[in-house]
Amino acid sequence: MPQDPTYRPTDVRMKGFARRWTVQDCLAWIDQQTPASVTETVALADANARVLGSDITSNVSVPHFARAMMDGFAVFASDTSGATTYNSQSLKVIGQSLPGNPFDGEISHGHCIRIMTGAPMPSDADAVLPVEHTVIHDDTIVIQGEVAPGKHVGLPGEDIRSGTTVLQQGRQLRPQDLGVLSSIGVSEVKVVKRPRIRLIITGNELLPPGSTPNDFNITDANSPMLSALIARDGGKVIHPGIIPDNPSSILEAFKADAEIILVSGGSSVGQEDHAPRLLAEHGSLDIHGVAMRPSSPSGMGTFDNKLVFLLPGNPVSCLCAYDFFAARAVRKLAGRPAQWPHRVLTLPLARKLVSTVGRTDYARVSIQDGMVEPIAISGASVLSSTTRADGFVIIAEDLEGFPRGAEVTVYLYE
Amino acid sequence: MPQDPTYRPTDVRMKGFARRWTVQDCLAWIDQQTPASVTETVALADANARVLGSDITSNVSVPHFARAMMDGFAVFASDTSGATTYNSQSLKVIGQSLPGNPFDGEISHGHCIRIMTGAPMPSDADAVLPVEHTVIHDDTIVIQGEVAPGKHVGLPGEDIRSGTTVLQQGRQLRPQDLGVLSSIGVSEVKVVKRPRIRLIITGNELLPPGSTPNDFNITDANSPMLSALIARDGGKVIHPGIIPDNPSSILEAFKADAEIILVSGGSSVGQEDHAPRLLAEHGSLDIHGVAMRPSSPSGMGTFDNKLVFLLPGNPVSCLCAYDFFAARAVRKLAGRPAQWPHRVLTLPLARKLVSTVGRTDYARVSIQDGMVEPIAISGASVLSSTTRADGFVIIAEDLEGFPRGAEVTVYLYE
Repeated sequence: MPQDPTYRPTDVRMKGFARRWTVQDCLAWIDQQTPASVTETVALADANARVLGSDITSNVSVPHFARAMMDGFAVFASDTSGATTYNSQSLKVIGQSLPGNPFDGEISHGHCIRIMTGAPMPSDADAVLPVEHTVIHDDTIVIQGEVAPGKHVGLPGEDIRSGTTVLQQGRQLRPQDLGVLSSIGVSEVKVVKRPRIRLIITGNELLPPGSTPNDFNITDANSPMLSALIARDGGKVIHPGIIPDNPSSILEAFKADAEIILVSGGSSVGQEDHAPRLLAEHGSLDIHGVAMRPSSPSGMGTFDNKLVFLLPGNPVSCLCAYDFFAARAVRKLAGRPAQWPHRVLTLPLARKLVSTVGRTDYARVSIQDGMVEPIAISGASVLSSTTRADGFVIIAEDLEGFPRGAEVTVYLYE
Repeated sequence: MPQDPTYRPTDVRMKGFARRWTVQDCLAWIDQQTPASVTETVALADANARVLGSDITSNVSVPHFARAMMDGFAVFASDTSGATTYNSQSLKVIGQSLPGNPFDGEISHGHCIRIMTGAPMPSDADAVLPVEHTVIHDDTIVIQGEVAPGKHVGLPGEDIRSGTTVLQQGRQLRPQDLGVLSSIGVSEVKVVKRPRIRLIITGNELLPPGSTPNDFNITDANSPMLSALIARDGGKVIHPGIIPDNPSSILEAFKADAEIILVSGGSSVGQEDHAPRLLAEHGSLDIHGVAMRPSSPSGMGTFDNKLVFLLPGNPVSCLCAYDFFAARAVRKLAGRPAQWPHRVLTLPLARKLVSTVGRTDYARVSIQDGMVEPIAISGASVLSSTTRADGFVIIAEDLEGFPRGAEVTVYLYE
């Protein structure tokens, strides 16, 4: 019977966790440990969905000149007074104002100019007579209705007055915000810098993403998944590839230039679980072992001012530990709200959902006919349970579960 | 009094729209005219949020070998039969199995091997005894509890069986989907090609985005906004910059290599509104003038098999016309659901919201203390109304509006 030459029975260091931290303990630790965001300046074109690093106050009025809001004729409103279909009046058309190309002159009573929507108003005219209310004869228009002063004229500052704070620090920029910023002459924006998240994917059994599994090797599912999740939360992924599962490689990777380190795999208390031990020895392992399912062998700590999250290698545990813990730190550093970004639905349970008091459960569910259907799963490694699921339900640690028919909050995967 | 040398009164072509199309007419036209999507192949790392172009069936089982789901000892379950704290039994540890590094031998009754989570099971062992249920003495373990056959063993195909369709055509890929695809050896994915959307931004008064407004020029707010909106909907923006507002430039731009053309500005019936006329002459102007506010001077048609949307230049009208019409075509071509992607809330109105029968209204609203507050606005050019707003309410053309207290659907800007 062959003997593994590296195997020494007395080497065995395998034990359970000395204690289990609660999910609340972990969230409190994250909120305490996550440093303040820093800012950077980006081009307007790259600013969508970024978080503003400072208030934006406009130095200009929008528009900064009076302009027509209809196609028609710029007139003295008083010249139209009393005009009706039965008492029409005439004005002489002496020129035109087009957008960006104003009428270069003055108008006097009895005169008007043709004007297009968005074109500058002549300084002396005070209303726009819509084209629909006129009959045009060569260089004369016959007016069949009156307009009040100011009618169909857009005034300076109508959209934005100079000196107004148009958008506030902390706002996640929307498409129309970019429009407003552009309109006030903002070409670069100070935004919260995207935190850099170094992935440390370990496991001697792991093949690079998309490889066909072979022998006793499996393919890394976690780095593609985590990369997409980190992008969702506003972080920037640094992932040079799977690293050898030994202490020196992992310790070296801890030194990466990043704000957050995510270690996937080797997060528990076994002999081959290097990262927790290295973190305890060279940094600080503040939390290890969490009262939750899946993801109980999760940990967190710090290394050279970086936040380090130890995520289990099992893909569902990895997803769950990321979403509960690391994601919160990524979002906070990215200047976003800390809470789950998922859309939520509240719907009744089709079947009871069982948990254990003292442990937070993350249950994958599907939605069928308006009811929440728990997905039967056998373990934390069944990643396909999260692709069959529409979302998840969280069962807090003080609950034994929910009865059939209970209204539960579903966090939707998307 | 200076006379504009280019001005000829008899040139004037200004009139109202001959008819107004309903929003429903427009949606029906879009659904009829939008061609089928095409597909392309992208790397797994670039596939997040893309729409699958075909079903994905796994050629492998995940896992493809039996593995331990706990740290402990791989045993014959029958060897643990009857073991309790008071009736402990011993097994000899003869080796170990690590992830990616299996035990290279056979075990017989009375023997076991140390095994780590994820490591291959020896072919003859049938259960994993968790380390917590053992006491370790050198190369012997004392068993204080029994395990059933199959316990803590992950079976081949437990996650995914070879031959299973894991994800279906038309699915928008989520982070965990990328994990599943990676795990079955998929490194490239056939996805729906992102439609190319050519922006034609016209207006002689327009300065490039982010320019400080000067003289009688204003800054283009629409291209930054539209670019972000198009990205939201899964399209790819082609925008070489503002083009001169003359027929030959616009006609040339119509010839762009793209699936959809968006013309912003000059969409109405005035003399300077070249795009509708060019489309009618060189392509097909199928709809022009819509019974809605804002955005009534919108149009749509085709040019060389491309869909062309004429969007008003006023920023709010542009946003509204994009979201009502062009966005639907972009999403359909991108393989996404046609309907609004916005999150929605249903809340009571704080004040009545007035509209006119026969016209669809797009009302910007804010949400205050759980009530929907319409935003007082003076015109379609007030883009800041959409940044102050939390979202919008649509008032269908058969309604005069909603009374105070009515529950309305708010489409949230984000």
